[in-house]
Amino acid sequence: MSLKLGVIGTGAIGRDHIRRCSQTLLNSQVVAVTDINLEQAAKVVADLQIGAEVYPDGHALINSAHVEALLVTSWGPSHEEFVLAAIAAGKPVFCEKPLAVTADGCRKIVEAEVAHGKRLVQVGFMRPYDEGYRALKAVIDSGQIGEPLMLHCAHRNPSVGENYKTDMAITDTLIHELDVLRWLLADDYVSVQVVFPRKSSKALAHLRDPQIVLLETAKGTRIDVEVFVNCQYGYDIQCEVVGETGIARLPEPSQVQMRSGAKLSNAILMDWKDRFIAAYDVELQAFIDGVRAGQVSGPSAWDGFAAAVAADACIEAQNSGQIVKVGLPDRPAFYR
Amino acid sequence: MSLKLGVIGTGAIGRDHIRRCSQTLLNSQVVAVTDINLEQAAKVVADLQIGAEVYPDGHALINSAHVEALLVTSWGPSHEEFVLAAIAAGKPVFCEKPLAVTADGCRKIVEAEVAHGKRLVQVGFMRPYDEGYRALKAVIDSGQIGEPLMLHCAHRNPSVGENYKTDMAITDTLIHELDVLRWLLADDYVSVQVVFPRKSSKALAHLRDPQIVLLETAKGTRIDVEVFVNCQYGYDIQCEVVGETGIARLPEPSQVQMRSGAKLSNAILMDWKDRFIAAYDVELQAFIDGVRAGQVSGPSAWDGFAAAVAADACIEAQNSGQIVKVGLPDRPAFYR
Amino acid sequence: MSLKLGVIGTGAIGRDHIRRCSQTLLNSQVVAVTDINLEQAAKVVADLQIGAEVYPDGHALINSAHVEALLVTSWGPSHEEFVLAAIAAGKPVFCEKPLAVTADGCRKIVEAEVAHGKRLVQVGFMRPYDEGYRALKAVIDSGQIGEPLMLHCAHRNPSVGENYKTDMAITDTLIHELDVLRWLLADDYVSVQVVFPRKSSKALAHLRDPQIVLLETAKGTRIDVEVFVNCQYGYDIQCEVVGETGIARLPEPSQVQMRSGAKLSNAILMDWKDRFIAAYDVELQAFIDGVRAGQVSGPSAWDGFAAAVAADACIEAQNSGQIVKVGLPDRPAFYR
Amino acid sequence: MSLKLGVIGTGAIGRDHIRRCSQTLLNSQVVAVTDINLEQAAKVVADLQIGAEVYPDGHALINSAHVEALLVTSWGPSHEEFVLAAIAAGKPVFCEKPLAVTADGCRKIVEAEVAHGKRLVQVGFMRPYDEGYRALKAVIDSGQIGEPLMLHCAHRNPSVGENYKTDMAITDTLIHELDVLRWLLADDYVSVQVVFPRKSSKALAHLRDPQIVLLETAKGTRIDVEVFVNCQYGYDIQCEVVGETGIARLPEPSQVQMRSGAKLSNAILMDWKDRFIAAYDVELQAFIDGVRAGQVSGPSAWDGFAAAVAADACIEAQNSGQIVKVGLPDRPAFYR
Repeated sequence: MSLKLGVIGTGAIGRDHIRRCSQTLLNSQVVAVTDINLEQAAKVVADLQIGAEVYPDGHALINSAHVEALLVTSWGPSHEEFVLAAIAAGKPVFCEKPLAVTADGCRKIVEAEVAHGKRLVQVGFMRPYDEGYRALKAVIDSGQIGEPLMLHCAHRNPSVGENYKTDMAITDTLIHELDVLRWLLADDYVSVQVVFPRKSSKALAHLRDPQIVLLETAKGTRIDVEVFVNCQYGYDIQCEVVGETGIARLPEPSQVQMRSGAKLSNAILMDWKDRFIAAYDVELQAFIDGVRAGQVSGPSAWDGFAAAVAADACIEAQNSGQIVKVGLPDRPAFYR
Repeated sequence: MSLKLGVIGTGAIGRDHIRRCSQTLLNSQVVAVTDINLEQAAKVVADLQIGAEVYPDGHALINSAHVEALLVTSWGPSHEEFVLAAIAAGKPVFCEKPLAVTADGCRKIVEAEVAHGKRLVQVGFMRPYDEGYRALKAVIDSGQIGEPLMLHCAHRNPSVGENYKTDMAITDTLIHELDVLRWLLADDYVSVQVVFPRKSSKALAHLRDPQIVLLETAKGTRIDVEVFVNCQYGYDIQCEVVGETGIARLPEPSQVQMRSGAKLSNAILMDWKDRFIAAYDVELQAFIDGVRAGQVSGPSAWDGFAAAVAADACIEAQNSGQIVKVGLPDRPAFYR
Repeated sequence: MSLKLGVIGTGAIGRDHIRRCSQTLLNSQVVAVTDINLEQAAKVVADLQIGAEVYPDGHALINSAHVEALLVTSWGPSHEEFVLAAIAAGKPVFCEKPLAVTADGCRKIVEAEVAHGKRLVQVGFMRPYDEGYRALKAVIDSGQIGEPLMLHCAHRNPSVGENYKTDMAITDTLIHELDVLRWLLADDYVSVQVVFPRKSSKALAHLRDPQIVLLETAKGTRIDVEVFVNCQYGYDIQCEVVGETGIARLPEPSQVQMRSGAKLSNAILMDWKDRFIAAYDVELQAFIDGVRAGQVSGPSAWDGFAAAVAADACIEAQNSGQIVKVGLPDRPAFYR
Repeated sequence: MSLKLGVIGTGAIGRDHIRRCSQTLLNSQVVAVTDINLEQAAKVVADLQIGAEVYPDGHALINSAHVEALLVTSWGPSHEEFVLAAIAAGKPVFCEKPLAVTADGCRKIVEAEVAHGKRLVQVGFMRPYDEGYRALKAVIDSGQIGEPLMLHCAHRNPSVGENYKTDMAITDTLIHELDVLRWLLADDYVSVQVVFPRKSSKALAHLRDPQIVLLETAKGTRIDVEVFVNCQYGYDIQCEVVGETGIARLPEPSQVQMRSGAKLSNAILMDWKDRFIAAYDVELQAFIDGVRAGQVSGPSAWDGFAAAVAADACIEAQNSGQIVKVGLPDRPAFYR
């Protein structure tokens, strides 16, 4: 029996998840959709030829008896409201990042879920589902490089549009590293610092690009993340873990090796979707499988909260130039 | 509506395909199984907790009204009989390699399918479904290395058991290259030659290992395939295409790059199943999707026949040491 | 006509340079040696079968009419005295690093050389003579990666002995990066910061290892250098230059690629001498050629001074944990 | 005391060797030169500012009391005569390849040298002096890949001029592999075969390009060498040695790794001189050092003869399409 899903938000990512659940994943069926623009919602249903009902709003959809679990893919500021409503309805909910646009909003969701007494929320961080990161974690966890001491990371995009602002290097870009590195190391951030290198002439006037974010973890591991969103040459995600006895590096995407034009080369991806598309499938399948098995796992509301707290500290560090403490409360037993 | 599959043969690969169809692939359901050992068939049904009926023999299963399409994963010598029966019943059939144990058997299947008037048969050659080979073919087809002139290939296994004989280097090992390289080049073989290098001391007394197979295609492309099934170090599949203006090489499997113990290294797989496991999923899903869409594609009975004719020539070349012509008849319009 | 060299200090590096000048390089002849241990000096002369005279002390050697140019390879604290004496004698002098053990000592040498009016001093920084760094600089200078914005570097040794103290990570190890990165970028440091990651359990109790040094240049380029002298796995020097439009990385030493034991691997060097041995030859040949042509080039007394000033700032940053300004005076016209 | 060299032939390679001996190598001095064009010889002496005397012809130069050793860099067909004259004069001689233009000519030189009773001849095969091939041989000789069973090689040039004919793929191109692979394996060829793949459209009408040469050694090792002299993309020398337990591959030239324009790339050389320039220095220095030490080593007249015999067999195999035996006589004790 397929899991009956309701989807709130039928923009680009919502539509893509609906297609994924309908055509690619096992045991899932989208039975209900809604959007602030109901015509668009209806169009997506028609385009993808799924027999889903269009609901007038998110709350109606959440409370429909036909809907067993929710995907929240609406505008970021509306996430908190819909996730809280899902928890109130006792229904499992997969929420695209951000879980909420403020750390305080995340905290409220954490509290609601704890009060509910059972995990219902999975946050849409897909990198822990990427095969490369999983292989990297397996190497770390095997002990073959000893304890991790340092991580050298880079998050590079070919270019960004005019609406991309300096703080989005944290909230839209670094947020993925803030999530995946916590998971990779099973550790938490205690301080952050941001430095601004010489600005690239390829970046628009209003944007400070690149940036380097320095993170310190509770165990003392030091992480440097280069965020460079106008690097021109490709979408390139690097992660090198320096351990006591060796170094492990995130695999490069597998490519045909070429010899031509006086170059020995492998293609570098230009589009972030190509890099993580398989991880999206795995991530959502895990949610569906988890709900059907009665046990939501994956990135939790606490993980969403922890990432939000760290992101807030990074933005403060962007502005102050100082080393900023990350004030994450103790982790509730519920999330251990 | 899931495709209702009947599976003939519940040995290792049969069982694996049943699991795949039941748990991993979309829109498929195994409703019927049989095996020469009926107890084993029943055990597989029980172990995998699928509600499939155990049939007394292949023909009963093929002709069951509950079965829409067949998987033939029985003992090689029985393939021809079951595939012919499936064609007679007008049912789509996925047959594990070999399509038949003789080229003549393959020819009969080709003739039966042509007489039937519609493609029903897909042969279990999985390499054309491997992401790496597909990327390599895309590079060739794009024209960016010009016309292919030479291929340098290797098929290496760590070791083989006592039952592996010299001719199995062709029928069990090279057979994959015989299939995939035809597909890669959209070309046919016209001559073959086999040379025996110095024998490895790691090979058992009765086995000539390694071997080098030299193939010539209709377009004049020259292919050398090293077959080395006791190479000790790993399961390693190499394919380098030398074109007029550049060279393209099959991607290495993506691995964590390590620096440790005075070595910069990437792991090499040891087990062939790890190398092509994803291709098995894609291959069978393609069969299921094709049947549901009314159009079987993928490696055809003709492809199985062509591979068998080439394999026969290779075995003759092993014995004679001479350059042997490959006498493939003209391709019927049906398979163009 | 060979250049007649006098060598002060016949310890390990002195002896190696004597052998180099006598057996490997063109147009050089060691005619005079001395050491605080005269017996050792005599032994080196005898061992290497060179017809050099043993002088009672450095000053006698410097002022000998038979000596045209000097190599100072004595104990670090004695460098300043001998270099100043060489300048006073108007003789070209190649001084192993450090030029002097204090920035003030370096400054005095700079002033003496400027007063003399002609370049006489070359400091023994060999990395600018390494083929890999030269290739990297050629790429940067070609403009093909745009302006350099960030450098990610690592200096790793397998292990160090008990006498290696925390500040030697700066004075003995980082000093090479402090020199070569200024040269690579044609830029100067304006601030430094040092952070201490979680300590490796492989480091002795008294040593903080690894360390990360963050450097800012006058042009705004940001550099991070990981210094990790107990990394176990190899002697590994990494340098990645992130430019506006691309990235260039220091070549790995050329190695035989191996496939064995389930690994695709290249050897990593374990001994720093193997990594830079060719650069020592090129460096000293450049000194010899320069002196013979009447024009000493290569790393100057000013470069030695600038590295010393930056090193002092790094040590202050180790102790304070703060961002420390690098107070390098304006570069004299003499050194432009 | 420098070795006093006489050089016969001041064309491109002769001039380059004169420069090398005069400016780069240790302990050598060119004191005599000659050429069929005496004006050119005089011009080279003037251009390079060496104090060498111009002799009226090769024989006068060989017999001059001022000349201790010879470099023969004249037109190929004249090599035999000058080498024989050098042996008659009892003087060490470095002869650029070919040693003689016929195997018979090589044999006469071998006989003359054996009759003389001491090695005087070194043939200008430089690849055994290449650092990469030496590293590869060290791996083979260490036993870490077991006995070599197969070699997969390629010799690729971007393009060749109109005067390059099909047999020159053997005499000018493959000749380097014929030499270096004998040395690498310490083995001799017993049979050869040549196959012609589909011709590249980039090759001129009269030229068959590419070619594949298949060699069998006395120990049974099988070698395939792709010769492709219009490959467009670069000058690329590949050599992969497949042993019983592992594979070793000739190092790629060390290059800056680039990330730019959606490619992760390393430059490939376009000019063969860049690839082996260091090997020329080492090769000639070895000759000079050998003569001064009274012991010429390096590629011998026998090696030149063996390469010539194998080349003759390859040309016969080009014409016949058959497997051709290589009829090398037993090696004289003198050359063991």
